[in-house]
Amino acid sequence: MSQFSQDFQADLRDLMCWRRDVRRFRTDPVDEALLRDCLATFALAPSVGLSEPWRVVRVQSPAARAAALTNFTAANATALDGYKGEKARLYSGLKLSGMREAPVQLAIFCDEATGKGAGLGAATMPEMRRYSVVAAITQFWLFARARGLGLGWVSILDPARLCQDLDIPDDWALVAYLCVGWPEQECATPELELAGWERRRQDVPVETR
Amino acid sequence: MSQFSQDFQADLRDLMCWRRDVRRFRTDPVDEALLRDCLATFALAPSVGLSEPWRVVRVQSPAARAAALTNFTAANATALDGYKGEKARLYSGLKLSGMREAPVQLAIFCDEATGKGAGLGAATMPEMRRYSVVAAITQFWLFARARGLGLGWVSILDPARLCQDLDIPDDWALVAYLCVGWPEQECATPELELAGWERRRQDVPVETR
Repeated sequence: MSQFSQDFQADLRDLMCWRRDVRRFRTDPVDEALLRDCLATFALAPSVGLSEPWRVVRVQSPAARAAALTNFTAANATALDGYKGEKARLYSGLKLSGMREAPVQLAIFCDEATGKGAGLGAATMPEMRRYSVVAAITQFWLFARARGLGLGWVSILDPARLCQDLDIPDDWALVAYLCVGWPEQECATPELELAGWERRRQDVPVETR
Repeated sequence: MSQFSQDFQADLRDLMCWRRDVRRFRTDPVDEALLRDCLATFALAPSVGLSEPWRVVRVQSPAARAAALTNFTAANATALDGYKGEKARLYSGLKLSGMREAPVQLAIFCDEATGKGAGLGAATMPEMRRYSVVAAITQFWLFARARGLGLGWVSILDPARLCQDLDIPDDWALVAYLCVGWPEQECATPELELAGWERRRQDVPVETR
């Protein structure tokens, strides 16, 4: 019987408040043992049929990083074109990735063709494999944050282009591009809220059937 | 500056080990205030562009529960037909949902048409909205587990049929059907591993580019 203390429960809630998308990193390196400890939480994540479809690729070489950054820059310029007036002005001032500074960058994929788990639970909802990868990323995010690291999830990318540039197997689907490092500052308020882009709701409405 | 203690970090890792898919529930009720506390973690979840696209529907009425159970039973029978020999024998012996016993059942949707966040971050990867919902579910799962509750995620369902039966708005996509309650027993080993269906990997391989 595992029991978690009230102090732990309160700290866990604090951690969820503090776990913010981080886009501003100091450039000092992340210790490899610390990174391994954090990555080990992937193996503890829930996965449909125990398929464990997460595939982790560290984007490390200057060429791979440059390709990813070029990809983001182009996608971000296209996204900016989709806004007008005040929203365009706001968007152009947002810092939406830490890809120039983050010492650790990880591309996380879902192996859509894994035989592990023999397809259990994924027949009617094959997207469950990708959802399993997201659950693993969320656990990694929380654990890394508890160790003081910040994480930013970049989604302003052309996935097909990134897969091609990084020479990723055909059956792997991009789920996330993660920037990891030491945050410049700690803040519990989402940066998009500070920048006036959007506000967080305080409540969670529940409908009943 | 938020600091988390080494004790907290160790407990968090334990929590991730203990956070297992639970399919065997006691039938005693879950306190409403406790459920609200756990659901409040949705509001702390990361979401693309601060779009907060999660929509929570409590499946409570006998008619709604019966429709969901019928849906699962049919999908599970179809899934069983897809296995042969030893795998079919194993599959037929698995308990794959707690829908008959779980006192709280929640269907979690993604509002694909929300204007919140003005589409930021979802242009190249619109699936990020559904991934945001999965991250919220993962946080809820961990927090509920820290409070002693068990959670099981049922994906052996026809999503279109469930949306129709529960009269769900057209723009909402089913992400998860969650069974919540007090677990019959506590176990850190996945039930699918105990049943001999699949084994968990111990490592997290990382490729480099």
